[in-house]
Amino acid sequence: MRHFTSAYDVPDLPKLLDAALAFKKQPRFRENLGQGRTLGMVFLNPSTRTRISTQIAARNLGMETIVFNASSDGWSLEFGDADVVMNGASVEHIREAARVFGEYFDVLAVRSFPNLQNRDEDFSEKILKQFIEHAGIPVVSLESATLHPLQSFADLLTIKELHLEKRPPRIALTWAPHLKPLPQCVANSFAQWILAWGGAELTIACPPGHELDKKFTAGAKITHDQNAALAGADFVYVKNWSATEPYGQLICDDQNWLLDPEKLAKTNRAKVMHCLPVRRNLELSSAILDSPDAVVVQQAGNRVWAAQAVLAEILKFDT
Amino acid sequence: MRHFTSAYDVPDLPKLLDAALAFKKQPRFRENLGQGRTLGMVFLNPSTRTRISTQIAARNLGMETIVFNASSDGWSLEFGDADVVMNGASVEHIREAARVFGEYFDVLAVRSFPNLQNRDEDFSEKILKQFIEHAGIPVVSLESATLHPLQSFADLLTIKELHLEKRPPRIALTWAPHLKPLPQCVANSFAQWILAWGGAELTIACPPGHELDKKFTAGAKITHDQNAALAGADFVYVKNWSATEPYGQLICDDQNWLLDPEKLAKTNRAKVMHCLPVRRNLELSSAILDSPDAVVVQQAGNRVWAAQAVLAEILKFDT
Amino acid sequence: MRHFTSAYDVPDLPKLLDAALAFKKQPRFRENLGQGRTLGMVFLNPSTRTRISTQIAARNLGMETIVFNASSDGWSLEFGDADVVMNGASVEHIREAARVFGEYFDVLAVRSFPNLQNRDEDFSEKILKQFIEHAGIPVVSLESATLHPLQSFADLLTIKELHLEKRPPRIALTWAPHLKPLPQCVANSFAQWILAWGGAELTIACPPGHELDKKFTAGAKITHDQNAALAGADFVYVKNWSATEPYGQLICDDQNWLLDPEKLAKTNRAKVMHCLPVRRNLELSSAILDSPDAVVVQQAGNRVWAAQAVLAEILKFDT
Repeated sequence: MRHFTSAYDVPDLPKLLDAALAFKKQPRFRENLGQGRTLGMVFLNPSTRTRISTQIAARNLGMETIVFNASSDGWSLEFGDADVVMNGASVEHIREAARVFGEYFDVLAVRSFPNLQNRDEDFSEKILKQFIEHAGIPVVSLESATLHPLQSFADLLTIKELHLEKRPPRIALTWAPHLKPLPQCVANSFAQWILAWGGAELTIACPPGHELDKKFTAGAKITHDQNAALAGADFVYVKNWSATEPYGQLICDDQNWLLDPEKLAKTNRAKVMHCLPVRRNLELSSAILDSPDAVVVQQAGNRVWAAQAVLAEILKFDT
Repeated sequence: MRHFTSAYDVPDLPKLLDAALAFKKQPRFRENLGQGRTLGMVFLNPSTRTRISTQIAARNLGMETIVFNASSDGWSLEFGDADVVMNGASVEHIREAARVFGEYFDVLAVRSFPNLQNRDEDFSEKILKQFIEHAGIPVVSLESATLHPLQSFADLLTIKELHLEKRPPRIALTWAPHLKPLPQCVANSFAQWILAWGGAELTIACPPGHELDKKFTAGAKITHDQNAALAGADFVYVKNWSATEPYGQLICDDQNWLLDPEKLAKTNRAKVMHCLPVRRNLELSSAILDSPDAVVVQQAGNRVWAAQAVLAEILKFDT
Repeated sequence: MRHFTSAYDVPDLPKLLDAALAFKKQPRFRENLGQGRTLGMVFLNPSTRTRISTQIAARNLGMETIVFNASSDGWSLEFGDADVVMNGASVEHIREAARVFGEYFDVLAVRSFPNLQNRDEDFSEKILKQFIEHAGIPVVSLESATLHPLQSFADLLTIKELHLEKRPPRIALTWAPHLKPLPQCVANSFAQWILAWGGAELTIACPPGHELDKKFTAGAKITHDQNAALAGADFVYVKNWSATEPYGQLICDDQNWLLDPEKLAKTNRAKVMHCLPVRRNLELSSAILDSPDAVVVQQAGNRVWAAQAVLAEILKFDT
């Protein structure tokens, strides 16, 4: 694996899951794999869990990390054509910036959110793609315009750890209310990974206008009826995302979508997942979050082992 | 020692002082104690000396450090009840945040200033206590609403290094003017540590309305007469703090409280201490700061050894 | 070498160039030289390449690095007289700050731009000089009010790598248009290093009012005719800098100074250099930047080896 930007970059998903679980048991068993190599972490948007878990993962492999926060360094990148006349606010073109990062680092990790203004632009993944095109080194997505693969890999890992029955787990991904129009990345990516894995039944429930792109959800059952999705589910993934039509907007404020213990009772004693940060009693009820049904902290913890398996795979490939 | 938040968390203060002095002589003699472990440093408020000295201390023990600045990452924590409806500015509840930090780190260090609006809230130390309650790992205070224990430990270390006579040192803690209403932490904490140590005579001089809480100062002599406190002192600790009544306000601008060489002449050739940063000729005269009487740089340097002794004690306990 | 602030701090420039080239071949061959030592990096102004390349250089030598960004930590330094009354915005005097950094770090690296308001003040290098005066440890400039020595050393390294003929290279340093008034540091420093090296012919072309100070350029040919400077050049260094008279202002917006392929044709197939970040089609045409004539990425990459040679020299001297 050279780059890691989606489930479809992974040549052997079951093997990568096993590698992550092996690191969870013995975090340092490959502690020299990244010796003398540096992971550059470029944040065009803020990060908590992703940054910290990836730094720990890198160090478990003996890699150094260097963090570059574009905003706090007042550094505005240009992603326009090569021939753009740069007489505006942006101070450096991605063509130079990425090539220079390629000189300094051995692996480059990049976070860049969608702007939620222009669907085609976001779906083109032009920022992530330009980093890959120009850096000349392996690139790991720390969340891009449409996907959040390290999150989804950790989510899948959590499901694999918790689902001990032989039959495929029944998974419901359900939309939740929020105050702000959020990216669709986590939801798109969760669907993509569950479907790429192939070992589960996935139902996605959302209000009209919030249907995710089929590119990510083909193979899942889509419904506007949350109760139907919850019925008999083994896992419920709770997440808000902004509308798909009109793109990127906040069009539904129906508080009935909030998951509470009464709704959870319709499931098969489901474990409740969320990528965090979560707004209590807006997205998800505190009664659930403070109960053993919620596995959100386990998910967050698994971010380390997911990132470590990914970095190890890239280091092995690239050596 | 599991957590470090005040002098009273330390089971054996003389022994901890000796450990710090041993690290000062041989910084790396326990360089493998923290191998493979990570100190998470969460700053809800800015820091210079505390952050840098603690990072160096951790690395001297072989620990990695990861710094998380809440403000520059635009991350606003919720400290309200578990059942709060999070439809405002805060994006993550401490209950989730601290538990996730507990997954990622081996030891958590936290800085959080008082808001100086509500005395009971500040004195409850609710922020630090919630980190401890939810993180599930050892927590080190990097300054909290009412105390600054790593500073005070370094201060005490400096006094121990400098006071070579057998009799107990006479120490004056004197209020100084300032432009802004500052926390009472450094003053509270200095008093607490000196009194917990028990080997000194402490006099605290301040304007009316600035008397520190007896919880921290019981056992010290309190006066409004700065000259009385200075007379015969071996050490003079200079520090501003905001009023205690009305709480957190700036009520005294009497420039006569500025310590200058004329006043210092009343002491027993006292060494002059300050936690830094210090505003020259507002809090403390430059004539003193630029003389050998000032030991402020030695104090700041001792921050490393204080932090290293604390981390080593926690690592040993927690192993 | 104790401090590194200009070409004239280097006792043996050819030897330092050879050391940098040796590190480029074998980055880790002195990986224990800085073991147990910490490089403190203080940024009064933002940085991308300089920070990252210096961190990697330090780690290649086994040194730890700690970064302190004054702005994002809301920390405003006072550089006035020792006797200043600090009742304004600045919170800490350089006399205390630098002495404390001297306690914590083994080597101190500092970036501080000119204010471009007062030529004498900028040319006095008072900020860098005060760090050196008070820190008591070796100081490395990461760009100061008038010079950028790590950049220029990397530039010279790039020229040495690329110029394979026996005759001295002909080098043109040419002014370029920009939107903002920029420091003169890179241009001053490039001239200083080329002239200190002594192995090249240097011509500097700029609009009237932009002539750099003779302190840095004595020995170079100065012209207002860009074409004359380009004729037969082996290297063309493109860079904007603000006016020298009136000091620090933007007085020329003549777009004819933009280097494009037509002008480049007048050279001896010159390699085109720029310190980055570069504004495409404002300072330098994209047709050149995207061609093999541009060596800007090689320059940026060489920043690591330049910094590593400098740090190694300081560590050896200081041991």
